[in-house]
Amino acid sequence: METVGILGGTGPAGRGVAIRLATCGYDVVLGSRDADRASETAKGITPRGSGSVRGATNEEAATCELVVVATPWDSAVATVSALRAQLANKTVISMVNALSREGRELVPLYPARGSMAAQIAFALPDSTIVGAFHHLPAAQMEDLDSGLDADVVIFSDNDGARKRVNELVNQMPGLTGVVAGSMSLASPIEAFTAVCISINIRHKAHSYVKLAGLSH
Amino acid sequence: METVGILGGTGPAGRGVAIRLATCGYDVVLGSRDADRASETAKGITPRGSGSVRGATNEEAATCELVVVATPWDSAVATVSALRAQLANKTVISMVNALSREGRELVPLYPARGSMAAQIAFALPDSTIVGAFHHLPAAQMEDLDSGLDADVVIFSDNDGARKRVNELVNQMPGLTGVVAGSMSLASPIEAFTAVCISINIRHKAHSYVKLAGLSH
Repeated sequence: METVGILGGTGPAGRGVAIRLATCGYDVVLGSRDADRASETAKGITPRGSGSVRGATNEEAATCELVVVATPWDSAVATVSALRAQLANKTVISMVNALSREGRELVPLYPARGSMAAQIAFALPDSTIVGAFHHLPAAQMEDLDSGLDADVVIFSDNDGARKRVNELVNQMPGLTGVVAGSMSLASPIEAFTAVCISINIRHKAHSYVKLAGLSH
Repeated sequence: METVGILGGTGPAGRGVAIRLATCGYDVVLGSRDADRASETAKGITPRGSGSVRGATNEEAATCELVVVATPWDSAVATVSALRAQLANKTVISMVNALSREGRELVPLYPARGSMAAQIAFALPDSTIVGAFHHLPAAQMEDLDSGLDADVVIFSDNDGARKRVNELVNQMPGLTGVVAGSMSLASPIEAFTAVCISINIRHKAHSYVKLAGLSH
């Protein structure tokens, strides 16, 4: 199996992806600015499959064959820019959303290039960017017994990379990939995360997106 | 029951809302620039409940107690601006999305005020704007036997108006209202329509959004 590195992987978003990747057999490297914290976090993650999760620096996570960006939005570009060489000629998955809290709601921010995926793509001209994992409830992702059955909306300008990520997602328990299309859809897909989280705050729920009526 | 007017109601989006409103008992006035065309369209709509659908001018539709804007996005502001007096002191539901076709995809356009609902709100300072009905597949909305079971994401800055529209939606067969929050969420909700339609084009499907895990 491929190794998967998760930049900024110690937060709830990264941990949820890590446990589900490891449960379907991948060896995951949780990256952090602080390798000790990443190792501590990794010890708390218990996948059920043959894969593994270990902590490391972001630099080491970036040497994996496939890399996921799970940092806070306001450090994503700085993090990947410093790792341009390690990430060259790889598929890099952005799960980053630019959001701001306003009272009871999260509202979307629109980065200058339209989306965080586009900001990351500009910072990584030698990598292939795919967007995925945006709308998932973190607590349910981390809990393998949560009964999660969510659709993961995927976008990229590279058809091969989209398909590769779609296959990856479909191996992960509780997730089904849905290729939406190109980077032209990055902005609405990222921004809709604000709607999902705001609904969950308002309704005290852990809801997630299903696209009913798709035959998978 | 209240009367509901639908501005630009002869298109697929307006027809789908009309038949489901009439089926749950509302008297619907389908508005159009061309009242004859609206009457012809209304004759082709056969609701199953006690309500009715008839065609009229947009001016007449705007005299109803509740009004839905279902025009193409590029005529929405001109249409409502001309009806400002008729729409004053009413709740006006925008189901308008600004979208552009790019090859196999629909991509979102971002109006200057962030959303079409905000453009309409600016044009109608004496009305209360609510957004709803954005992500629905038109063909399935029109077909009462389609088995549609979709969530309708609702937003407004006015809590009473949001609740009123939510109650309206919950009466309509096949639809469940979900209040998302304020107009700060208008942009991502409208723009996500491009993702829904692009997925349906790509996957040759009539999918729609369900927020799994919400207890209604």
